[in-house]
Amino acid sequence: MQKYGGTSVADISKITNVAERVIKTVEKGNDIVVVVSAMAGETDKLIRLANEASGGRPTVREYDALISSGEQVTSSLLSIVLNSKGYDTVSFLGHQIRIITDNNHASARILKIESAKLKKELNKKRIVIVAGFQGVTEKNSITTLGRGGSDTSAVAIAAALKADYCEIFTDVDGVYTTDPNVYHKARKLKKISYDEMLGLAGAGAKVLHQRSVELAKIYEVPLYVRSSFNDDEGTLVTKEDKDMEKEFVSGVTYDKDQAKVTVIHVPDRPGVASKLFTPLSDKNIVVDMIIQNASVEGYTDLTFTVSKKDIREVQSILSAVEKELGAEKIDFDQNISKVSIVGVGMKSHSGVASQMFDTLAREGINILMISTSEIKISCAIQEKYTELAVRVLHDAFGLEIGN
Amino acid sequence: MQKYGGTSVADISKITNVAERVIKTVEKGNDIVVVVSAMAGETDKLIRLANEASGGRPTVREYDALISSGEQVTSSLLSIVLNSKGYDTVSFLGHQIRIITDNNHASARILKIESAKLKKELNKKRIVIVAGFQGVTEKNSITTLGRGGSDTSAVAIAAALKADYCEIFTDVDGVYTTDPNVYHKARKLKKISYDEMLGLAGAGAKVLHQRSVELAKIYEVPLYVRSSFNDDEGTLVTKEDKDMEKEFVSGVTYDKDQAKVTVIHVPDRPGVASKLFTPLSDKNIVVDMIIQNASVEGYTDLTFTVSKKDIREVQSILSAVEKELGAEKIDFDQNISKVSIVGVGMKSHSGVASQMFDTLAREGINILMISTSEIKISCAIQEKYTELAVRVLHDAFGLEIGN
Repeated sequence: MQKYGGTSVADISKITNVAERVIKTVEKGNDIVVVVSAMAGETDKLIRLANEASGGRPTVREYDALISSGEQVTSSLLSIVLNSKGYDTVSFLGHQIRIITDNNHASARILKIESAKLKKELNKKRIVIVAGFQGVTEKNSITTLGRGGSDTSAVAIAAALKADYCEIFTDVDGVYTTDPNVYHKARKLKKISYDEMLGLAGAGAKVLHQRSVELAKIYEVPLYVRSSFNDDEGTLVTKEDKDMEKEFVSGVTYDKDQAKVTVIHVPDRPGVASKLFTPLSDKNIVVDMIIQNASVEGYTDLTFTVSKKDIREVQSILSAVEKELGAEKIDFDQNISKVSIVGVGMKSHSGVASQMFDTLAREGINILMISTSEIKISCAIQEKYTELAVRVLHDAFGLEIGN
Repeated sequence: MQKYGGTSVADISKITNVAERVIKTVEKGNDIVVVVSAMAGETDKLIRLANEASGGRPTVREYDALISSGEQVTSSLLSIVLNSKGYDTVSFLGHQIRIITDNNHASARILKIESAKLKKELNKKRIVIVAGFQGVTEKNSITTLGRGGSDTSAVAIAAALKADYCEIFTDVDGVYTTDPNVYHKARKLKKISYDEMLGLAGAGAKVLHQRSVELAKIYEVPLYVRSSFNDDEGTLVTKEDKDMEKEFVSGVTYDKDQAKVTVIHVPDRPGVASKLFTPLSDKNIVVDMIIQNASVEGYTDLTFTVSKKDIREVQSILSAVEKELGAEKIDFDQNISKVSIVGVGMKSHSGVASQMFDTLAREGINILMISTSEIKISCAIQEKYTELAVRVLHDAFGLEIGN
């Protein structure tokens, strides 16, 4: 199983490179299914057209029919290139396989894959090429899986076919200890666990579509993240193992798309959180970190973060419930970011959190909020300190050297 | 039933114009199905990609999957525009309806249309939008119907739904007595018969896809050829009637894509024609006019025309069979064209042919070949005389005035 992203199929010469890589894999005696994204820029172009056609509010069923056409172009072109080199192929769209999804247009979830047709073609020793990012509902309307969804197509098909592994070819050559653009000492990881990868993705690193990692974890599909422009080994995303636990921390990541909302001096009684968060979730606004201070004289403060793009809508929703909540006032701060350290090793090592806080304090970086999970610790800080925080944490946990 | 060509949906502003025309039709209380082509230039762009990907020889199944994506874009965009104006729509691709075709990729023929789904949506008072040019085989591979195939999609659906009529919106505002670019006195026809339209199309005028007219004739679907850029009445293509027979000639047309092949001094015995034409038809080379001179002393000359683009291949095929034919030599002439007059009236009027020959002779235009059918007379002439011939014939048959 191989998946190629948009920059890997951006033009015919790049598609030809992909074809050669596919051929190399076939010549080693492997059966192969290849999933492709749309040409770089094409999906954005189609989205622009949809917005232009509708003043920014395209109907979702038609939107999906529109933007799924980008993958149709690349899957057939790759097939044509392979045919012209003498290889037998067959390309499939989501509805031809069929990849059945729910009705949740524009971010549909795959429910099942009718893999019999794929198996039949593989048995004929054909190279199977699949348009990523798309499926169909039971009633045969076209759906798409959300940005990055081709990763998920690839993993889901790999799972359905019980493929040995799934290679995700992209424009970066693997998963790094942190963003190399922020710190030149960033190191490529040889191996990372599914949970760590999920932790990194949730914390802002966008190498893989989140859902694809979740599926890979459930079905235990080993993922290789590799560059389509060189032969580097890339990073293996796989089950947790002993090696991984030796490291306290595997990576440092950051997310600048955070805004902080503080509801001040609100009566601390049952139902307050629900009154606050239900109207937000009704509008599909994702709340990330949530902190509630200890109650003082029956009053408390509630702080949470949302995506910067949602802040306007949050303001208007909260001004409507402010009175009902009995809050003194509501503060908004858009100049924040979130810095996180991720690692399965921290489960069995105490002191990782305090080392993180110390490191930040030593640089005079004030921690505004903290949230922790088994394998991740996140701190909200002032946005201007983001890069500094990443670098000092990377140094503090010795990520440059690694194992 | 309405169909809009590529120039009518070339960008969002043009698609919005189409939407307004559709709305006008709906507001008059009509149920409507709209078939759209790809944006002008898009299909050509996709074909270029396919050729670039394969050194000019794309595999046909993949080629069809590729180029059918153009209509997917416009059908969903038109739907999005109509939705944003508050109209309920549903768009369908060939495989969703389903429009079943034969396996003849790139120029498939429609075998049947499962119209139940369309009827159901029309009963819900939805505007139904269909991607033209495409269908699927019984096994669900995508096919396309050949250049201009969206006309055929529209007529086939109109026939399946027993629509009152089918409007073909294009960048010309109707069918003319001749090409207005060649003769400014060309007059728009109010009405023309299916057979005349077929005669014009076969003789080089490319207003409608030939197969669409054949289908319209079989199922008696009235066609209106109209401009999407104005409200002119256009031309009605319909069954022959008394009015039409009053005119000797309805139009003059020409085709410069002709090359002449003459096989000289070949023994006149059974099987010669077959030896000559079978290898050509095996290679899908269409032979247009064919003339065999009267035999002199057991020898004859055979002359025929083919498309200019095929002349190289014809040369190589014939050089292989030349000896076997026993021909003295084979001549090729690419500097010819075909001028035709078309009209159902000529069935009942003698003298039309001789008037044509006289008219050409008076201008010193030598006739190289003649072929006739019930409603059409065609003459091959030297290419340089094409425009002159069109003008003098247009004058000679009084087409400027009409009925």
